[in-house]
Amino acid sequence: MDIHDLTRDLNTKNDAKIVMLVGDGLGGLPQEPGGPTELEAAQTPNLDALVKQGICGLSLPVLPGISPGSGPGHLGLFGYDPLKYQIGRGALEATGIGFELTGHDVAIRCNFCTLDSTGNITDRRAGRISTEESAPLAKKLRNVKIPGVEIFVEPVKEHRFVVVLRGEGLRGQVNDTDPQQTGVPPLKPVARDTASERTAEVCDQFVKQANELLSGQAKANGCTLRGVAEKPELPSYEEVYGLRAAAIAVYPMYKGLARLVGMDVVGEAKTLDDQMDVLAANWSSYDFFFIHFKYTDSTGEDGNFAAKVAKTEQLDQCVPRILALNPDVVIVTGDHSTPSMLASHSWHPVPTLLSAKNCRSDRCETFGEAECIQGGLGQFEAKYLMSLALANAGRLGKYGA
Amino acid sequence: MDIHDLTRDLNTKNDAKIVMLVGDGLGGLPQEPGGPTELEAAQTPNLDALVKQGICGLSLPVLPGISPGSGPGHLGLFGYDPLKYQIGRGALEATGIGFELTGHDVAIRCNFCTLDSTGNITDRRAGRISTEESAPLAKKLRNVKIPGVEIFVEPVKEHRFVVVLRGEGLRGQVNDTDPQQTGVPPLKPVARDTASERTAEVCDQFVKQANELLSGQAKANGCTLRGVAEKPELPSYEEVYGLRAAAIAVYPMYKGLARLVGMDVVGEAKTLDDQMDVLAANWSSYDFFFIHFKYTDSTGEDGNFAAKVAKTEQLDQCVPRILALNPDVVIVTGDHSTPSMLASHSWHPVPTLLSAKNCRSDRCETFGEAECIQGGLGQFEAKYLMSLALANAGRLGKYGA
Repeated sequence: MDIHDLTRDLNTKNDAKIVMLVGDGLGGLPQEPGGPTELEAAQTPNLDALVKQGICGLSLPVLPGISPGSGPGHLGLFGYDPLKYQIGRGALEATGIGFELTGHDVAIRCNFCTLDSTGNITDRRAGRISTEESAPLAKKLRNVKIPGVEIFVEPVKEHRFVVVLRGEGLRGQVNDTDPQQTGVPPLKPVARDTASERTAEVCDQFVKQANELLSGQAKANGCTLRGVAEKPELPSYEEVYGLRAAAIAVYPMYKGLARLVGMDVVGEAKTLDDQMDVLAANWSSYDFFFIHFKYTDSTGEDGNFAAKVAKTEQLDQCVPRILALNPDVVIVTGDHSTPSMLASHSWHPVPTLLSAKNCRSDRCETFGEAECIQGGLGQFEAKYLMSLALANAGRLGKYGA
Repeated sequence: MDIHDLTRDLNTKNDAKIVMLVGDGLGGLPQEPGGPTELEAAQTPNLDALVKQGICGLSLPVLPGISPGSGPGHLGLFGYDPLKYQIGRGALEATGIGFELTGHDVAIRCNFCTLDSTGNITDRRAGRISTEESAPLAKKLRNVKIPGVEIFVEPVKEHRFVVVLRGEGLRGQVNDTDPQQTGVPPLKPVARDTASERTAEVCDQFVKQANELLSGQAKANGCTLRGVAEKPELPSYEEVYGLRAAAIAVYPMYKGLARLVGMDVVGEAKTLDDQMDVLAANWSSYDFFFIHFKYTDSTGEDGNFAAKVAKTEQLDQCVPRILALNPDVVIVTGDHSTPSMLASHSWHPVPTLLSAKNCRSDRCETFGEAECIQGGLGQFEAKYLMSLALANAGRLGKYGA
């Protein structure tokens, strides 16, 4: 039995509202030994007040020492074991640009590359061609036609684009064609199982037609395919938790991840203030609200400690608007740490607070890494956060008699 | 997926050096309520300094409440789930006396016993015969000859000795012959699967010839076989972590355990000072160093609180020599607790410190059980220590995109 077997079996309906506010990459590191982290340096009076009445802890996104990408990071927060449920690279890339995958789709991350006259790769990233140059080329590839398959081609950034193949009987077990080196030609797309042989054939035809359409280009006269993947099969929030769930995000990636677990993406927010408007407007229609704030991560990725502090303070400012709606359970956490000192996602556990009437508060006074070590939630795998949320919402019955 | 699937997939090579200093049986208990444990009573200025810049926690060798032997204790520290990977008793006994098992070996723990004239056991341990008396008898058993099988007989201590059978087609699924009671004859060796039937036959012949060679002995005129086991199949450090690993140990058991996971046993150290010399001499040739210190365990086993304190202080004294080599990650821990108040291995979680540049230090000030409870590593299963070590060494990439 896993946690979803329990949340399904013990599901209890009521009117309780749960808000999960995710500061992407929330956890950090001090700039110098003994100093504060970004979250500890930030003035967060609203979060601190929530900590005083709530319970804190440190969330392990995957397992100790493992730095997650956005996909596994969010799956963990959503309560889906990120080692059991995996999102293929192509499917994540399509999700990240807002492409809504169906069950008949196979998504592929593609790179423009440079081929010499003999067909060998001379540059695997087509000289890191600019997006301005590459986007029209990607759109040109929409002219590829393969009988029985609907083909979508979407530009991404620089040398990258996404191809989605839609059709009956397409499966995702096809090897990459990027040989990971120059001086050799791209590999043939090879199926790893018989059910994926049709996909491999379609990929082969796609590449041939694409190369013709690209012939004559100086940099981007070829392409490679990577991370061929079907839409992941994830049970929905409704099915595993009995929750009508809404996602309020600005960036396509997080809208897409929420959609994969059956959340409705609501509103068209551009700012955190907008997101609060959307939250209020949809309050009566949903039981669970996932609110995603990107900038604690992007400033961390930029290695900008002061900017991450400022964005954390901005995150703090939205808390009163959430509380004004009188939610039953409020969770504030991150999908992983992004210390500005590392300028990357990291393995460090993530400060997490849960506030609810019967949460059994601890002695934590402020929201920060060192305080959370002492918190009543201890250190826990993120996949258990949803069962804690449901319990605190009175939405889980007793296990066994 | 388990943690080794992740460490394999995410492996990243660099020049970082990891040192794991294991004080065997490091954890302890106070002599009286409210008093310090051995580790807390010891003056450990060097470890305390490392704690201040590092992160601490309590390591659970197996699972809560489980007291491990040396085998599972070390497998956990090495990152091998001690419930998944098991070392058969015979193989551990052979390892403990420095016998290097091959894939064609079956190792057996044997006891001398006393038989009466009807062949019934009157003493299962041959009157706890002294090692001086028993060792020549064990060597006498080297005269047992069985076609197609190479036989090694090694004395252990008192009534115990080890037999290793080497040959094609020998498997380890053979029951013990010790009936666990007196007044009855030893049991026949019985195979639990058809592949082990040849081993059972060889065991039977061994016992018959051994009993003839021992006939006329007053105490040790018979023998029983227990814990028949093949060499355990463990993936290597190189394979699961991409680490060139060296073991610097004094006792055969710990050299043997390290060899089972593919570490090179380096040097011929007799003292902790020797071990530091060996460490320095091999510094450039390896990525990972396991340094084993026995005496925190043996003094604990002796029930000698003061001696364990003194040995803990001795352990502390080697820390500057490790730090002088400028390692990237230093871990100090134990394979289990051996409280001198219990004079045995125990289930208590083990004080653990990890020091590395980006470890996210906690508020711990000194190395001891009560401080470690407050540490940033929390309580964690020992099998995750290696993924933490690799992450802190920058040797693990991101999981998922």
